[in-house]
Amino acid sequence: MVGKTFLYAQSGGVTPVINATAAALIRQARADGDRVLAARHGILGVLQEHLVDTASLSDAELDALGHTPGGVFGSCRYKLKSLEDNRREYERLIDVFRAHQVDCFFYNGGNDSADTALKVSGLGEVMDYPIQCIAVPKTIDNDLAVTDNCPGFGSVAKYVAVSILEASLDVMSMASTSTKVFVLEVMGRHAGWIAAAAGLVAEAPGDPPQVILFPEVPFDRKRFCAAVRQSVEQHGYCSVVVSEGLRDADGEFLTAAASRDAFGHHQLGGVAPTVAEIVKQELGYKYHWAVSDYLQRSARHIASATDVEHAEAVGKAAVDLARAGKSGVMPVIRRLSDQPYRWDIATAELDQIANREKKMPAEYIRDDGFGITEAARRYLAPLIHGESFPPFGEDGLPEYLRPELVEIEQRLPAFRV
Amino acid sequence: MVGKTFLYAQSGGVTPVINATAAALIRQARADGDRVLAARHGILGVLQEHLVDTASLSDAELDALGHTPGGVFGSCRYKLKSLEDNRREYERLIDVFRAHQVDCFFYNGGNDSADTALKVSGLGEVMDYPIQCIAVPKTIDNDLAVTDNCPGFGSVAKYVAVSILEASLDVMSMASTSTKVFVLEVMGRHAGWIAAAAGLVAEAPGDPPQVILFPEVPFDRKRFCAAVRQSVEQHGYCSVVVSEGLRDADGEFLTAAASRDAFGHHQLGGVAPTVAEIVKQELGYKYHWAVSDYLQRSARHIASATDVEHAEAVGKAAVDLARAGKSGVMPVIRRLSDQPYRWDIATAELDQIANREKKMPAEYIRDDGFGITEAARRYLAPLIHGESFPPFGEDGLPEYLRPELVEIEQRLPAFRV
Repeated sequence: MVGKTFLYAQSGGVTPVINATAAALIRQARADGDRVLAARHGILGVLQEHLVDTASLSDAELDALGHTPGGVFGSCRYKLKSLEDNRREYERLIDVFRAHQVDCFFYNGGNDSADTALKVSGLGEVMDYPIQCIAVPKTIDNDLAVTDNCPGFGSVAKYVAVSILEASLDVMSMASTSTKVFVLEVMGRHAGWIAAAAGLVAEAPGDPPQVILFPEVPFDRKRFCAAVRQSVEQHGYCSVVVSEGLRDADGEFLTAAASRDAFGHHQLGGVAPTVAEIVKQELGYKYHWAVSDYLQRSARHIASATDVEHAEAVGKAAVDLARAGKSGVMPVIRRLSDQPYRWDIATAELDQIANREKKMPAEYIRDDGFGITEAARRYLAPLIHGESFPPFGEDGLPEYLRPELVEIEQRLPAFRV
Repeated sequence: MVGKTFLYAQSGGVTPVINATAAALIRQARADGDRVLAARHGILGVLQEHLVDTASLSDAELDALGHTPGGVFGSCRYKLKSLEDNRREYERLIDVFRAHQVDCFFYNGGNDSADTALKVSGLGEVMDYPIQCIAVPKTIDNDLAVTDNCPGFGSVAKYVAVSILEASLDVMSMASTSTKVFVLEVMGRHAGWIAAAAGLVAEAPGDPPQVILFPEVPFDRKRFCAAVRQSVEQHGYCSVVVSEGLRDADGEFLTAAASRDAFGHHQLGGVAPTVAEIVKQELGYKYHWAVSDYLQRSARHIASATDVEHAEAVGKAAVDLARAGKSGVMPVIRRLSDQPYRWDIATAELDQIANREKKMPAEYIRDDGFGITEAARRYLAPLIHGESFPPFGEDGLPEYLRPELVEIEQRLPAFRV
């Protein structure tokens, strides 16, 4: 029996566990004699026929890949236009699939990638080449429709919760004579999922972070300063988490507004320094601020074990769906109960997912706008459960895989994107 | 036999392992029936008689304290003036020591605290109360004289090395269509010890971080941009670590200069956004930047096991020195060999430490100024060796101790600092 040929690609911003999905998918395929090619840099690598044969990865390397952050095959930010507007690229995809006898294309990404996957899944009929296409979920933004949560989010949530807990213990120690306010900026341009995760630390009233600034809640300078002052007066310090997507009452990003008001067109800082500066101007408190940026979404060393399990499960399930002949679908996480947390993998149609966005429910944000509710806690808590430390070497560093990826010989003429 | 009474206090910026020192010191004292009081907020708590009896901490709480970041008793930034200039405060210290029958005062801190400890150790004769005083080393800055390294530094070094490794794997994945340059700002106002630790990741030529900006090396915009461009052209991306203390050729902090040039007197950002902006202006590359700030010095979850061992050892040794009747000294780490790393605890006189500063040796910085040498690697590598993960709870968070600290009854009238 000749096995199937799969082509796997990674798309969009990477996560601490996207490689765990890749490793699980490859392992599942390999177990039954199917072959997995991987494209370099997402769909661009498909278009340009930059492919590697994952058979070159040993089982030990696959294990190491499973605990390595980043996207080992390279990712891309590139959205295919519609078939009408860009038939040339779709024809090229089919050419590449045909040249390498690809039976199924797996696209591991978020909303945009689900859209691309949906389009590709429709190509078979139009272009007379039988191609299956399955989207595999991944995004720290946690904004995919249908799935309970998105692989990658749980680990970022855990990083943010652990970090604000630790930094709060620091500022608590210092507040009597020094820093009284600490501000941590986290990702989340449109939705406050990641900022909300910091709220898991606040288990009892008064616990840090005392103030969370969500993109869903317009920034009110007066109310914010009052909340900070109250925390400093009551607890001696204030720990603040701010989402990069924080906007003012006019819907303008706070960083942009602050930058234009004070400095003309220059724009150096993130929102954390802007918020910290407001605290200093209005209240005079000494502050510190941190911007975790890429650190939060690459921190595989503090990944959530639950998130890793999700990431592996969707990778395996994708192969099972391919073998079952499915196309235009995504394996999704279905929550069966909150506590104990039970879940399984279901199958969703891509037209229910592509170009949709799951917002954070309004009832997850506390009435005062500065914290999370019990409903949010019930949803979020299971996602940071469990640790999945990578192995560390004698050099004191995690043993992350940086394999030499050798591209297979190209069978087609070059293609300009 | 009546045991001795010790008074312990924490000073200056806290570290991920200062509580490990506290826990080891208390355990060592407790084992032989000695009593340990602790001052709230460093020397201020002594002056104001805010003291707690650590007997209230159970053995299990002491264990938990050993893996909790921050300074559990509170720290302070407060330097005693000389005896001539401020006799009132010294007399008050003696009053407090006498009122609580303190035999030995342990001050856990850096340079300033060693200076305070030295002054206190001289009080006994002048003020006719037999007080011993022992300084216990702690500082992430790694700038204490005599000791091979400072408890706290190894854990920050490990955090920074792990973080830049992880973030570099992220930017590597994204660089083909998105972010090409990542900049991480780390602490180190005067010396590049922490920035140097990031260099441990660069084990082979071309490894990240490709550019480290040390406070010891005046910033040269042209040479910096050339180095970034070369890395992007050769490796597809560039990973940069910058020390907060980076200065230009005139000795001016880069943040300050950038801020004044562009924006007048406002100062929002750290040095990372300044450096990132230079990359964009000169080279046009898309960038991301992070400022780890307090996260780096509170990240107990990724502490170095070697650092934790050091922190515990100096805590224990301090008690042994007290019992041996010593005063005006500090237990220090003495390196016996690099590889395998062997060390023991020696005793140093405080007048060899107070107000001195250990600079990073010039031969630790590579000739091009953008990386570390083999000599630096030999020195640094052992300090990040080994992991010491805290236990995690069912809630997915580290089980850090936040004990209720009940102050003992004051025996003296109030004192205004």
